Amino acid sequence: MADPADDRRFMAAAIALSERGRGLSTPNPNVGCLIVRDGAVVGRGWTQKGGRPHAEAQALDQALDQARGATAYVTLEPCFHLSPRGPRCADLMVRAGVKRVVIALRDPDPRTDGQGAAYLRAHDIDVEMGLMAREAAAAMSGFVLRQTLGRPAVTLKLGLSLDGCIALKDGASRWITGEAARAHAHLERARHDAILVGGGTLRADAPRLDVRLKGLEDRSPRRLLITRGPALKGWETVSQPDDIAALAQVDHLLIEGGSATAAAFLRADLVDRLLLYRAPILIGSGLPGIGDIGLSDLAQAHGGWRLTDERRLGEDRLEVYERRRTA
Amino acid sequence: MADPADDRRFMAAAIALSERGRGLSTPNPNVGCLIVRDGAVVGRGWTQKGGRPHAEAQALDQALDQARGATAYVTLEPCFHLSPRGPRCADLMVRAGVKRVVIALRDPDPRTDGQGAAYLRAHDIDVEMGLMAREAAAAMSGFVLRQTLGRPAVTLKLGLSLDGCIALKDGASRWITGEAARAHAHLERARHDAILVGGGTLRADAPRLDVRLKGLEDRSPRRLLITRGPALKGWETVSQPDDIAALAQVDHLLIEGGSATAAAFLRADLVDRLLLYRAPILIGSGLPGIGDIGLSDLAQAHGGWRLTDERRLGEDRLEVYERRRTA
Repeated sequence: MADPADDRRFMAAAIALSERGRGLSTPNPNVGCLIVRDGAVVGRGWTQKGGRPHAEAQALDQALDQARGATAYVTLEPCFHLSPRGPRCADLMVRAGVKRVVIALRDPDPRTDGQGAAYLRAHDIDVEMGLMAREAAAAMSGFVLRQTLGRPAVTLKLGLSLDGCIALKDGASRWITGEAARAHAHLERARHDAILVGGGTLRADAPRLDVRLKGLEDRSPRRLLITRGPALKGWETVSQPDDIAALAQVDHLLIEGGSATAAAFLRADLVDRLLLYRAPILIGSGLPGIGDIGLSDLAQAHGGWRLTDERRLGEDRLEVYERRRTA
Repeated sequence: MADPADDRRFMAAAIALSERGRGLSTPNPNVGCLIVRDGAVVGRGWTQKGGRPHAEAQALDQALDQARGATAYVTLEPCFHLSPRGPRCADLMVRAGVKRVVIALRDPDPRTDGQGAAYLRAHDIDVEMGLMAREAAAAMSGFVLRQTLGRPAVTLKLGLSLDGCIALKDGASRWITGEAARAHAHLERARHDAILVGGGTLRADAPRLDVRLKGLEDRSPRRLLITRGPALKGWETVSQPDDIAALAQVDHLLIEGGSATAAAFLRADLVDRLLLYRAPILIGSGLPGIGDIGLSDLAQAHGGWRLTDERRLGEDRLEVYERRRTA
């Protein structure tokens, strides 16, 4: 008999593995997979750069013969559709002799959408679907939103004083947060396919938007500028928030400023996640982080955000809020 | 032999007791006292309304004969100076037969200032001074600052959105925070001798500034208005931040708005504690909580505030920051 607490623990580990592929596996979902036999992990995998190999293929490759009779924990239903790029994961599971497959999220891709699970069951594999589905969906939000809303998952990052300023009145913003917070923000860049800023931020800060962390330099995302003006060398351009839906190979988008850009995406309800890096300082009468979002009634502001993570980063604090959407 | 961990635990309890008298014991310090014999608490006390009885007198009254041979934990050095209002606590300790007295903070009042401890030692009582002095000083900040800087301890309260706004552009601020946070803010009112607002807040919100918590209605503090204009019925008036030093019977002052008033006190470096009630909402382009504090260089803003408490209050979060001052 499977212990439900063990199942949750292993699935949480699979979800943590899936995070490693965020912003790297696009256009494929950043799946995580764990193969467990007799209580011991015998294989681990997460979707690799560009989407191959899949998490399951990698984990089964590690497990080899030990996959026979084992349980697989997968954050997304194993794929069923044929692709010239690699094998079908549902088929790999069957051939490896896996006995039980625990799945967090049913694959919303219509080419799989339950067929992977059905195929496994048809081959006498025990299948459970839905364990920690919310957490898995959050970890694979880029893929999920691309499938359900046809657009990337959008994260808005703000580096704030306690009174909500992103800069002094004269625009000076170096530095509000300390080294640890800035390093964390660079790590977040590496987890996104693209970073977007507005024209004001480009002119004021000339940001490089790269990942300045040793060993991760090649994880620097694409750079996007939101402007109605002409394109700029080295930058892709969108003219309005809705345009992000049309960006190829962008499932995870990070917005880094400024306040007008943040407001434009919030007005369009296109922000799914807030990263608030907060320094223990007061600025007073500085530049606010967010411009006019068209709010006319405080009651409408409530219920929209849920705190999902928080931590200290040196003297600063990070808070992560996720958008609550009524399905 | 006294166990240092036990000492800390009992002193922490005495400090928690002292908090009960904050804003009530003025002009006396809000001291807390615990009498412990053979590891069991036999007496507890905190300075009562208006300053009498003292914490030690109350705790010894509870302990009666069990005080003999016991250890007393006091957040402030027992008073030594004669007063027509009651007995000297150092003397009470001796007469009760206490064997050991652990003191957090040496009394800065020149009429005691070490003499209480010396008197105890002269009567063969073991005295230890300095345990958790910082925490005790924070709990009795009103008294300590009155003694050292000649002014009340000042707390600035802000009810903020995540982006640091205290209201919509049109001034609407009902409600940003939820019921639990508002109830907590009312409890904080009860812990202050007076509340101060600026003219703008008075005109915009007509705040009552009372304690609307069942059973605590009589703990409503005095109401102060900062204005250069004429006095207003039911309100005391100060014309500038420095004037608070001259207020009689005010050791704990709470500032409740608005942004110009907050800025005036911050500019004068007269804020010792920040109470940030933060709602998980975004307002965007609303009214900022803090006006111009004269900051021209971000480097100067750092190092000034230390997070000392945080908690959830319903959907909201409270953060308490204390001012770091170089002594």
